[in-house]
Amino acid sequence: MADYRIAAMKSPIEVVDYLFARLHQMGIRSVHGLPGDYNLVALDSLPKNNLKWVGNVNELNAGYAADGYARINGIAAIITTFGVGELSALNALAGSYSEIVPVVHIVGYPSTISQKDGLLLHHTLGNGNYNVFADMSTNISCCVERLNDPSYIAAQIDYALQQCWILSRPVYLSLPTDMVQKKIEGERLKTPLDLRLPTNDPAREDYVVDVVLKYLTAAKNPIILVDACAIRHRVLEEVHGLINKTNLPVFVTPMGKGAVNETHPAFGGVYAGDGSLPEVKKRVESSDLILTIGAIKSDFNTAGFSYKTSQLNSIDFHSTHVTVRYSEYPGVHMKGVLQKVIDKVDLSKISAVPGPYMETEPKAEEDDSPTITQAWFWPSVSSFLKENDIVITETGTANFGIWGTKFPAGVTALSQVLWGSIGYSVGACQGAALASRDAGNERRTVLFVGDGSFQLTAQDFVICNDGYTVERFIHGMDAAYNDIAGWHYKDLVKVFGAKDGTYRTYQVKTKDDVKKLFTDKQFNAADCLQFVELYIPKEDAPRALKLTAEASALRNAKG
Amino acid sequence: MADYRIAAMKSPIEVVDYLFARLHQMGIRSVHGLPGDYNLVALDSLPKNNLKWVGNVNELNAGYAADGYARINGIAAIITTFGVGELSALNALAGSYSEIVPVVHIVGYPSTISQKDGLLLHHTLGNGNYNVFADMSTNISCCVERLNDPSYIAAQIDYALQQCWILSRPVYLSLPTDMVQKKIEGERLKTPLDLRLPTNDPAREDYVVDVVLKYLTAAKNPIILVDACAIRHRVLEEVHGLINKTNLPVFVTPMGKGAVNETHPAFGGVYAGDGSLPEVKKRVESSDLILTIGAIKSDFNTAGFSYKTSQLNSIDFHSTHVTVRYSEYPGVHMKGVLQKVIDKVDLSKISAVPGPYMETEPKAEEDDSPTITQAWFWPSVSSFLKENDIVITETGTANFGIWGTKFPAGVTALSQVLWGSIGYSVGACQGAALASRDAGNERRTVLFVGDGSFQLTAQDFVICNDGYTVERFIHGMDAAYNDIAGWHYKDLVKVFGAKDGTYRTYQVKTKDDVKKLFTDKQFNAADCLQFVELYIPKEDAPRALKLTAEASALRNAKG
Repeated sequence: MADYRIAAMKSPIEVVDYLFARLHQMGIRSVHGLPGDYNLVALDSLPKNNLKWVGNVNELNAGYAADGYARINGIAAIITTFGVGELSALNALAGSYSEIVPVVHIVGYPSTISQKDGLLLHHTLGNGNYNVFADMSTNISCCVERLNDPSYIAAQIDYALQQCWILSRPVYLSLPTDMVQKKIEGERLKTPLDLRLPTNDPAREDYVVDVVLKYLTAAKNPIILVDACAIRHRVLEEVHGLINKTNLPVFVTPMGKGAVNETHPAFGGVYAGDGSLPEVKKRVESSDLILTIGAIKSDFNTAGFSYKTSQLNSIDFHSTHVTVRYSEYPGVHMKGVLQKVIDKVDLSKISAVPGPYMETEPKAEEDDSPTITQAWFWPSVSSFLKENDIVITETGTANFGIWGTKFPAGVTALSQVLWGSIGYSVGACQGAALASRDAGNERRTVLFVGDGSFQLTAQDFVICNDGYTVERFIHGMDAAYNDIAGWHYKDLVKVFGAKDGTYRTYQVKTKDDVKKLFTDKQFNAADCLQFVELYIPKEDAPRALKLTAEASALRNAKG
Repeated sequence: MADYRIAAMKSPIEVVDYLFARLHQMGIRSVHGLPGDYNLVALDSLPKNNLKWVGNVNELNAGYAADGYARINGIAAIITTFGVGELSALNALAGSYSEIVPVVHIVGYPSTISQKDGLLLHHTLGNGNYNVFADMSTNISCCVERLNDPSYIAAQIDYALQQCWILSRPVYLSLPTDMVQKKIEGERLKTPLDLRLPTNDPAREDYVVDVVLKYLTAAKNPIILVDACAIRHRVLEEVHGLINKTNLPVFVTPMGKGAVNETHPAFGGVYAGDGSLPEVKKRVESSDLILTIGAIKSDFNTAGFSYKTSQLNSIDFHSTHVTVRYSEYPGVHMKGVLQKVIDKVDLSKISAVPGPYMETEPKAEEDDSPTITQAWFWPSVSSFLKENDIVITETGTANFGIWGTKFPAGVTALSQVLWGSIGYSVGACQGAALASRDAGNERRTVLFVGDGSFQLTAQDFVICNDGYTVERFIHGMDAAYNDIAGWHYKDLVKVFGAKDGTYRTYQVKTKDDVKKLFTDKQFNAADCLQFVELYIPKEDAPRALKLTAEASALRNAKG
C-alpha cells in the first residue's frame, strides 16, 4: 500500500493486530492450532495482543479443542496452515457447524502474489488452484472471507466475526503471508462489534406472543422441553425465566442436557421418546401442550425418531421462526418472543400440573455382582458431580449413559449427539478446561470416554470395554473390525511427558472401586490431571443406546 | 429391485462383492479404514473376497497408510464412514491427489431413502444436504461416483477404478447402506478391467519422436533428469531402457529419488538447483540438452525454484504432452514416446559425455565432536541401506537429508515433497510395509521421521531435535510454537500394546552409537519393529532445507 494512505491513517495498525484485537474484544484469551510456514509470522503477534497460543499436536484435536473452548467461553479461534493443516481440521469444524458452535478458523495462506501467479508451492494440489480449500470450507462455514486487499480487510473481519457470533457457526478467514503486516486503520477498533441480535419486528412479535399465550392458557397440562438450540442461541436466561415464573414441568432432550438447573423442583428428567424413563415418557407424551425450545430432532437425540408426540400439541421456538401447531411464524427470534411471553403471561390462567421429579440418586439396578454395569454406573455418577462442573461425554456409551445422571446446579454438559465424531471429547475436554481457566473460575472438568473413541485422539475416565461398542450394537458384536488393540492407557500420561506429581492414574474394576473413588477426598479435589481406567463388559450398553442402535441398523437396511 | 430382474441375471452378485472382487482383481489385498455404522455391513464382506481389513485408529492415519500401500502396491483402498470419517481422511486424500497416487475411497453412506427424505441423521450437518461431503471430495478426486441405483453401479465402479489407475489419482465412491447387498450381474467380472493407457496416435507420436531425436543427436552433452511423474505414471522401465541404451548421465530430482538404480555407472546424484552438490549443479546446468522425464517443478523439489537451466535446452516428457524447447506437443503420453525414442535412437550419433558419479560413501563432514549432525548422518545411512529396502522420509529434515544418501539398487523411496503434510510418514510406513508383505516379499521398511512430525500421527527412526525444525528455519527459531512436549517416544511402543520380544527400541546420541547400530547384526536383520530415538541438535538442518526455507520465508514476506 502506498505510504500516503498509511500517512492518512489516524492509528495505523497491522492486519494481524487488528484481527487479534477483535478476537480479544470478543472474549477469546487462548488460540488453538498448529504452526505452519504460512502462519508463522501471524503467530508472532499473539502475545502482544494478550492471546495465549495453545499448540496442539494435530489439527483435528486443535479443532475439537476450539469447539470445546467455544462451548464454555462463547466463541473460540483456531489457526491452521494452508491445505494440509486446514483439511486435517475439517471434521472438527464440520462438527462445529453441525452442532452450532462459533469457531473462527484462520488459515495462513501463501502470499497474494504467489496465488495470482499460481506458483507450484508445497501444500498445493499442484494445479495452481488456490481457491479449492476455501471452497471446501464454504460448505461448513456461515461466512468465508479471503483477506486479500488491505482496503477491505477490516470490514471483512468485522463482518465475519459478527456472523460467527450471531449465527453461532464457524467462519473461515484466509490470511495470506503478505497481508499479515499490512497497515490498516486502527481507529475502527474503538467501536466494539455490534453482537446484538437484530430485534424482532414488534408487531410481528406481539402477534406471535398472543398466539402462544392463547394456546398456553387453554392447555390443561402444558410442559416445557428444552433442546440444544436453547443453549446454542443463548436463551437459557429466558428459559429459566419461564420456568421460574410459570413452574411448568420442564424436561430436556439429550442435546439439551445441562441447559436447565436440574435441582429445580420442576425438573423432570430427559425426554427422548422411547429412550426416556417410563414416568418421563408418560408425562411428556400425555401433555396437551409442549413448549419446545430450540429443538434438533435428530436420530440420536430422539432415540431413533421415537417421539410419540403430536404437532397439534406443540409450540416450537427457534432462532429463525416459531411454529404453533402447523402454523409457521417466520422472521422472529425466540429470544424476544420468550421474554415477552414471560412478561405477559397471566399466571392465574396457567395450569401448572407438577410432573415427575428426577431423583438425585435414581435407583440403580439390583445386581449383586461386583462387575460395573452401565445401568449401575451412570446414576452413581450423580453424587460424584459438583456444582458448576463441566461434564464431557463422548459419542458412544457415555453420551447415552449420561441421560441417567442427574446434574447439580450450574453443570455444563458437552457432547456431540448430532455430529457424533468419535474422538471429539478428548480434545473438547482440553479446550473446555482451558476456557474455564481463562475465565478465572477453574471449574472441575470431567470427561467420560470409551477406549475405542479415546484411541482416535489419544493425547481422564477411559471406559475400557474393548472397542467400538456403539458399532457393536448397530452391527457386528464380535466382528474384528470393532476390536481395538489393548493399549496401556494410564501409562500414556507418563509417556506423553507428564512429570511425577502432576497427575494421578487409577484402574477401577468393581462397583466398590467406583464407590471408593467417588468418595476419595484427593480424587474429588481434582487438583491435577486424573486418569481413570474404568472396566465395563463390552456387551453392556446404556438402554437408550441399544434402542437407538437398533433403529439405526433397521434404517440402514431399509431400501 | 424387482425379483424378475434378478432372475434374469446369469450370476447375481451383491454390489459389495462386485466392488471387492474388482479391488482384488486390481491387486489389492488389504483395505484400510475405520468402522462406522454406515459401512459395517460392507466390512462383513471383506474376508470372503480375500481382502484383509486393516483397522486404523483414525482416518487420517488410515489415509496415509493407504497412500503408502498404493505407492508400493500400485493402488490401494480405504473405507470410511459418512461425514465424520471421510472428512478426517481428506488431508491424506488431498495428498494422494497432489502427489498423484491412486487410492479408492469408499464411503459408507446412509440409505438412499434416508438421503431422499433428508432425514436429520447423525453425522449430517443437520440441514438435509447429503451431497455436501461428496462435493467437497470432488476437488481432490479424479472421479466421484454416487452408487445409488443398482442398474448403473457396476458400470460406475468399473469406470471409477479405471480412472483411478490410469490417472493415478484418488476416486470417491459413495456406498449407501441399502445398496450394499443389492444384486447386480456378476458375469461382468469375468472381463478384467482394461487398465492399459490409451495408445498415442502413431503419426502424432512419430512426429514428436523425430523432433526429440533431432535435438538429441545435435546435442553435445545431453543428460537425463528423472522426476516424480516418471514413477507415478509408470515409465520407470522406459527410463531404465533409455539409460541402459544411451549411457547418458542421469540425475534425479528430490521427488524422483528412487526412480533410478543409483548404482548404475551413469547415475550422478540429486539435482535441485542451488540445493544440489556443486559437481551435480555444474554438470546439469552446463548441459546443452536436458531430457526431463515427469517433472514437477515445485518449490521444495527445486530448492526454492532455484533451477539455473534454460527451456531452450530442455525437452520435457509428461503423461499428457511433450514439450521441446518452447514447442508443445499435446495428446501424447511419454510412455509411447520414450519407448520409440529408445527403439529409434542411433547410438553412433549420440554424444554421451560421462558426468560426475555419486559415491557410495560421500565424504562426511570433518568434525571431531561426537554429536550427530545432519551433514554427517545422511551420507552415513548409505551403507546401512540394503537392496530393495523401502525408505520413507518425513517432510522436514528427513526428506531434505535423504538427498545425501546413496541408495542400493531396488530401493523405493516414499516422501511427500509437494503436499508436505507432516505426520504422513508414520501412516505411510505402515501401509508400505503391509503392501510389501501382501506381495510376499517382506522388503525391509525404514522410516526417518522428526519428533515434531511424529507427534501428529503417533501410533521407527525418530529424530529427536525438539520440535518443528523446518518451521524454525522458515520462521521462529526459538519461538514457543515450534516447541513440542518431550514425549518418551520409545516407551510408546510398549504402551500401545506391543508384547515383549516383538519389538526393540534404541536411543542413539553419538556418531559412535550410529556406527555401532548400523553394523549391529540383529538391528540389520530387522526381524521385528525397531524403534530408534536419534538425537540431533535442533538448530541443525540439511543444507538444502536451509536454502529452501530461506526462499519460502522470502516468498511469504513479498507482496
